[in-house]
Amino acid sequence: MKATLSALDTSESPFTPLVVIELAQDVKEETKEWLKARIVGKKRDGGAQLLFRPLLNKYEKETLGNQNLYLVGASNIRLLLGAEALGLVKECNDGTMRAFTYRTRNNFKGFDDNNDTFLTMAECQFIVKHELENLRARDESMIPGYPQAKLYPGKSLLRRLLTSGIVSQVFPLHDNEALKKLEDSWYSRFPLKYQPIDHIRGYFGETIALYFGFLEYFTFALIPMAVIGLPYHLFVWEDYDRYVLLASFNLLWSTVILEVWKRGCASMTYRWGTLVMKRQFEEPRPGYHGVLGVNAVTGREEPLYPSYKRQLRVYLVSLPFVCLCLYLSLYVMMIYFRLEAWALGLHESSGSEWTGVLLYVPGILYAVVIEVMNRLYRCAAEFLTSWENHRLESAYQNHLILKVLVFNFLNCFASLFYIAFVLGDMKLLRQSLATLLITSQILNQVVESLLPYWLQRKYHVRMKRKMQALKADIDATLYEQVVLEKEMGTYLGTFDDYLELFLQFGYVSLFSCVYPLAAAFAVLNNFTEVNSDALKMCRVFKRPFSEPSSNIGVWQVAFETMSVISVVTNCALIGMSPQVSALFPESKTDLILTVVAVEHALLALKFILAFAIPDRPRHIQVKLARLEFESLEALKQQQMKLVAENLRDDSGEKGS
Amino acid sequence: MKATLSALDTSESPFTPLVVIELAQDVKEETKEWLKARIVGKKRDGGAQLLFRPLLNKYEKETLGNQNLYLVGASNIRLLLGAEALGLVKECNDGTMRAFTYRTRNNFKGFDDNNDTFLTMAECQFIVKHELENLRARDESMIPGYPQAKLYPGKSLLRRLLTSGIVSQVFPLHDNEALKKLEDSWYSRFPLKYQPIDHIRGYFGETIALYFGFLEYFTFALIPMAVIGLPYHLFVWEDYDRYVLLASFNLLWSTVILEVWKRGCASMTYRWGTLVMKRQFEEPRPGYHGVLGVNAVTGREEPLYPSYKRQLRVYLVSLPFVCLCLYLSLYVMMIYFRLEAWALGLHESSGSEWTGVLLYVPGILYAVVIEVMNRLYRCAAEFLTSWENHRLESAYQNHLILKVLVFNFLNCFASLFYIAFVLGDMKLLRQSLATLLITSQILNQVVESLLPYWLQRKYHVRMKRKMQALKADIDATLYEQVVLEKEMGTYLGTFDDYLELFLQFGYVSLFSCVYPLAAAFAVLNNFTEVNSDALKMCRVFKRPFSEPSSNIGVWQVAFETMSVISVVTNCALIGMSPQVSALFPESKTDLILTVVAVEHALLALKFILAFAIPDRPRHIQVKLARLEFESLEALKQQQMKLVAENLRDDSGEKGS
Repeated sequence: MKATLSALDTSESPFTPLVVIELAQDVKEETKEWLKARIVGKKRDGGAQLLFRPLLNKYEKETLGNQNLYLVGASNIRLLLGAEALGLVKECNDGTMRAFTYRTRNNFKGFDDNNDTFLTMAECQFIVKHELENLRARDESMIPGYPQAKLYPGKSLLRRLLTSGIVSQVFPLHDNEALKKLEDSWYSRFPLKYQPIDHIRGYFGETIALYFGFLEYFTFALIPMAVIGLPYHLFVWEDYDRYVLLASFNLLWSTVILEVWKRGCASMTYRWGTLVMKRQFEEPRPGYHGVLGVNAVTGREEPLYPSYKRQLRVYLVSLPFVCLCLYLSLYVMMIYFRLEAWALGLHESSGSEWTGVLLYVPGILYAVVIEVMNRLYRCAAEFLTSWENHRLESAYQNHLILKVLVFNFLNCFASLFYIAFVLGDMKLLRQSLATLLITSQILNQVVESLLPYWLQRKYHVRMKRKMQALKADIDATLYEQVVLEKEMGTYLGTFDDYLELFLQFGYVSLFSCVYPLAAAFAVLNNFTEVNSDALKMCRVFKRPFSEPSSNIGVWQVAFETMSVISVVTNCALIGMSPQVSALFPESKTDLILTVVAVEHALLALKFILAFAIPDRPRHIQVKLARLEFESLEALKQQQMKLVAENLRDDSGEKGS
Repeated sequence: MKATLSALDTSESPFTPLVVIELAQDVKEETKEWLKARIVGKKRDGGAQLLFRPLLNKYEKETLGNQNLYLVGASNIRLLLGAEALGLVKECNDGTMRAFTYRTRNNFKGFDDNNDTFLTMAECQFIVKHELENLRARDESMIPGYPQAKLYPGKSLLRRLLTSGIVSQVFPLHDNEALKKLEDSWYSRFPLKYQPIDHIRGYFGETIALYFGFLEYFTFALIPMAVIGLPYHLFVWEDYDRYVLLASFNLLWSTVILEVWKRGCASMTYRWGTLVMKRQFEEPRPGYHGVLGVNAVTGREEPLYPSYKRQLRVYLVSLPFVCLCLYLSLYVMMIYFRLEAWALGLHESSGSEWTGVLLYVPGILYAVVIEVMNRLYRCAAEFLTSWENHRLESAYQNHLILKVLVFNFLNCFASLFYIAFVLGDMKLLRQSLATLLITSQILNQVVESLLPYWLQRKYHVRMKRKMQALKADIDATLYEQVVLEKEMGTYLGTFDDYLELFLQFGYVSLFSCVYPLAAAFAVLNNFTEVNSDALKMCRVFKRPFSEPSSNIGVWQVAFETMSVISVVTNCALIGMSPQVSALFPESKTDLILTVVAVEHALLALKFILAFAIPDRPRHIQVKLARLEFESLEALKQQQMKLVAENLRDDSGEKGS
């Protein structure tokens, strides 16, 4: 009746390849043997108890050129036990969401011992990845054959193998059949329909599904802003009242949509089980290091790192560094504006063609410097965040995103702020805004998906030709697939996609009363963005590992902060407009005081609104409370049983 | 081994009176019998299974004049089972905090079957009160003997008895010995020492202990502000930089102290068990009504009331009503200012003595009107909040407090705001502020404690004389105690005490740069306030029922909001000062813009600070996470057991 990991090795199940491990070309035989032993080894011996096989071409026993490719799979029961260890949450037959356990498997909706569709392939790959990442060093002091690759007890083996270059990559395989089905319902048809979010989640996991859900929600939420903004542009409405109306609507609307998203997101992730899944009780992320000890919460042995040390690193190193970089970036911007003014002066005084060309130099220089700074900063941010040593992947991501976000925000908007509030040139502002918004959208669409897609296509055709030269037959499709996919680009996470949306939200909301058309452009862009992002996910990049998540994390805070900042900027812009100034002809002081009063009232309204709208729909609140209640009751029951057993033992001893 | 409520009636334990019920003078015999039957009746018959006895004078079997006084007690085991039903949380022998259950009683620290000091007397009285309040009507359609007192299934009997005047009051008895001990360590000695918060909690319960904890914390936290403010007053420092320094310090300091209080409060309530106690899983408050149904979270039968109806009542009735009242209050204030200006004009033009008297009339009139409005509004607020039909006592309290708070805030500070920002008269502001602060403090000290204490003393002496006339001997002390205590005033909850602190915080922080001495006065006042409040609790009022609570509720929000508002007012005041105006001689616009920029920066800093300081200390976070982890694990275990039992049953059936 009882299925434990030790019982597993006796049952041999058919091998479904889930994850590919590519080793470096010159890896020693000794290392390969050791790695294989650890991956297939039993759990109690510190192994992962997975299935591990080299990639074979059916006819030639082993293809020499590709002997460094290995496939990892797992038996069905191993995957189910892995799901239990990870705390995956599934729907029960009675409609509640509960953490899956192997022993109670028949309570869960859609479970069948003879059928392995209970776990989605994305979940299976996540389980395998988690098991591989949590293979940790025991008494090894180095990786066999590589004395320079040091190990210490508790160090993640896979991470050391990757950092020392022995393993060059680990990636999950696509499922061509499922992918075709997903594509059909997703983006190959009429663009104006809802995305199959649940299917996306099944194939790519929650993090990516949440991004697409947010993209879709955000696009629909922008439509009212676009519709209301259009007549302002078409009829060149520039009355005071109408601008105030537009700005107020935008501000309150942006608060409402962000609050409503939280509710929608909670409903969605409750259905997926990730809202209930407690990821803080998981094992630490592979990059986490510290002295081996016992976790005070879960009681498991794992590396421990005192949180005050992390705080010191965050506040005494990372924070000053970020501030310094922000200052540097502002400084560079000021140099750019001065250079431009100097070039303009030179051109006006001489008027030759040579100086006409010179006019473009500061802009180009600035763009190049910004790009270089961005890349350097990103590396530094990744290093620092990794050095901060966060226990949870989500904490790591949030800290990294926050660092990069602030820098990008400044680079994107500082020049616009300068134009708006220092130069006070509304015409130039509108023009820069339109240029930035439209060029960034076009560039993104091209760079993000069309270009890689085209490259991929070219490579694909070349590979096909090479395959045919190898005379591979139908049975070689797996081989072909692996070789093809290993050359695809790696999807680096949703960061850049969210960042694009975030900056777009900035263009739309920060200066909405100067350029009301921005929302319409954003809506148009996002409708095509859905398709190009979908294409990118399905065809351009390697399949990414799925990652369970219950919300969009620090992006929620970022969007909310943006909407607070936009209250300030919009009020200031309205106050600066000549129409409004004309209303207070005798005193500029009255004008400013009125604007400040309105701004404070709007901010107060925003906070009250955000406070009054509950973050979770009522029915989710009830379900979560029910789960908490049941858990606490179960804990009570458990303790009562323990007491009863102790008493029985006592009386038994007396009796004997 | 198993102790259930049905086993209780066989064990007769000594009767300790805990709670007194006073019936009206003319209550029918039939009603008394019915009430007694319900109170002593078994739980399964809808009774409370408590002990119930009339108050007797030992020699004369029953004192005729006091036959309407009844004592309620409970056996030890009944109290322990009541503690389990309420979900009281206690410390275990292994240092963790767990919900008490009778079966696991020996796991808890300080538990001894032969000793009944495990539950504090305050807890016992809370349990008895809870049981009495949750005596609910079954098939009765009215209270026997009173056809006009209608009942319906699920209606709280005690509440109906109180509203129809059959029961005139229910109050817990003092424990004179413990009270004496508490007083000795609390306020009879040197005032400048820490209060015995844990003892206060043991005697009066968590809500009152938290108030005293907050009062003490707040007083100590004000000391730095008082110390820094003193030289400003003594040396008449009026430089710009120094005022900005003072204001900035005050603003950041007030944010920090409020955040740190949350942490301290969490540590305290964790130790007391109320942080872990889940009061939302309790039975609803007695005033809650609705159709009998099954609670979706706890699965218990209780009245249900849809939350959208409550929301409609809150947003469509209560909110407009509160806004209307605030408008009315502002309107009355404007009339007062006009009347005063008119009286001043009249006095100046005529200069007679008659008109000199007339100068005081508007102020007195205004004070009377405000007092009347305050009382009327409070009744209306209580009615409305009760009508909103909140399920939890805490929700009811929070909604009531919020309503009353906003109105009081406006009444107290609107005139100061008017003087500061409309009249712009800083001298008058400082003078009004000083007058308001000092008179309110003196008045409060007198009205709140000295006056009732004096009345109490007088009554006490009169009663003693009466007692001696009755020739009661030593054994009559209980009788004497009950008769004395029933005449004492009723403590109406911590609302007025917190309100006093809240308004004081307003005086200190809203205009701190105009009147830096306010903090010093507040500190002085609070040191004596501790003593007078303690005296009030111990000697002036009836003992209040204890009420478990895990934080100071909506007051935390109120204090935080006040500190946000004070950023705005202080920046405005500094901007209006002539010293600062002199810094921007040529342009008032620059001045205002600078002030607004500084204000926004301070507000941003405040929010970041509040966000960066965790609400709970690390060790409490870990302990709470551990509890959650264990609960979820226990739930898993429970389900596994269920499955195992089902399987055993299945195989058992097959076998037979």
